[in-house]
Amino acid sequence: MTITITAFERSPDGGKGLARDTRVRWALEEVGQPYNVRLVSFAAMKEPAHLALHPFGQIPTYQEGDLALFETGAIVLHLAERHVGLLPDDANARARAIAWMFAALNTVEPPILEFATARLFERDKPWHEARLPLVDDRVRQRLDQLSDRLGDADWLDGAFSAGDLMMVSVLLRLKPSGMLDGHPKLAAYVARGEARPAYKRAFAAQLAVNSPPVAG
Amino acid sequence: MTITITAFERSPDGGKGLARDTRVRWALEEVGQPYNVRLVSFAAMKEPAHLALHPFGQIPTYQEGDLALFETGAIVLHLAERHVGLLPDDANARARAIAWMFAALNTVEPPILEFATARLFERDKPWHEARLPLVDDRVRQRLDQLSDRLGDADWLDGAFSAGDLMMVSVLLRLKPSGMLDGHPKLAAYVARGEARPAYKRAFAAQLAVNSPPVAG
Repeated sequence: MTITITAFERSPDGGKGLARDTRVRWALEEVGQPYNVRLVSFAAMKEPAHLALHPFGQIPTYQEGDLALFETGAIVLHLAERHVGLLPDDANARARAIAWMFAALNTVEPPILEFATARLFERDKPWHEARLPLVDDRVRQRLDQLSDRLGDADWLDGAFSAGDLMMVSVLLRLKPSGMLDGHPKLAAYVARGEARPAYKRAFAAQLAVNSPPVAG
Repeated sequence: MTITITAFERSPDGGKGLARDTRVRWALEEVGQPYNVRLVSFAAMKEPAHLALHPFGQIPTYQEGDLALFETGAIVLHLAERHVGLLPDDANARARAIAWMFAALNTVEPPILEFATARLFERDKPWHEARLPLVDDRVRQRLDQLSDRLGDADWLDGAFSAGDLMMVSVLLRLKPSGMLDGHPKLAAYVARGEARPAYKRAFAAQLAVNSPPVAG
């Protein structure tokens, strides 16, 4: 069955790969599933047709036959459960890999989201500068803990899994800020993720949308 | 196999049921699995023994034979996949219920967490009052969208599922603030969750830890 995902017609990050469709593209590439992309404008994302697919008016969405899904975590888990390549065979190891997916999305990403929000949407506020150290400390605490757990391992729990895909994707949001530089083990972990052929294909695919080749 | 979870020795909310062990207790009650609780102090949560179970030094954790899990979402999903009562049988409906779990944790909870953090940890900051409307608006936007999707239905997608368990749990964090009052459909949805016998048992169990009966 044909898989169709949605992505920004024009990503706010201009093609840095931080929009969430990159996470889904990466998962699709890891499990070797072809997919179509339907681009949506910011205006269309708030229309009833898109809200029927995504109640919070965001991207990506996922359609495959009768199934329509939203939420990147759910889409990646759906793919990981149905195809080989993103979850180990052993039941306990699978449960642990899924725990890392949730850790990425519910423990590590929220302070990173606040970090990004403070810089994007509160830059003009009188408290902006004074508040940043507090926001940064919340991120740093999570990075310290994650780095301690990762140690010198390549991935969070054995072989690369959907948990690593999600954690690397979440940490990538920090890369432009230089915030990862203070955590060399995490910076190397993110670089290992970026070096995966599947990630490279996903990144190139989203970049092709956001910076089309010059016509000539 | 015996299931053991961890919970706060003394919950910061004094037994309002907002600590995350309540979510896991609720899931265990819905699927009818008995469990033991090991209470941990704030000091013990930062010790190596607990960090081995939970890399971010939080509760709850979940142990069952050889399996050790952290992250509430992962624990609830683990239970939902292995027992009847929290996920529908139909594969597509299951995937959608799981999408609501991720939506609760990665789309609805982050602004609610920021809402709580601003009130708990930035109360003494000079920007506190001026910044609150902005934080509240982020929550309100998500509540508006969620309320629109729920409409007049009892639950988010057909019968009660792990997605509702997680969404109600996330919304409960707003209840003390009165923020749900502006969204009567969501307030009624949360009340339906609280009225479930399994929720009542979970709530009573955490309350028994946090306000022990007066000796007499």
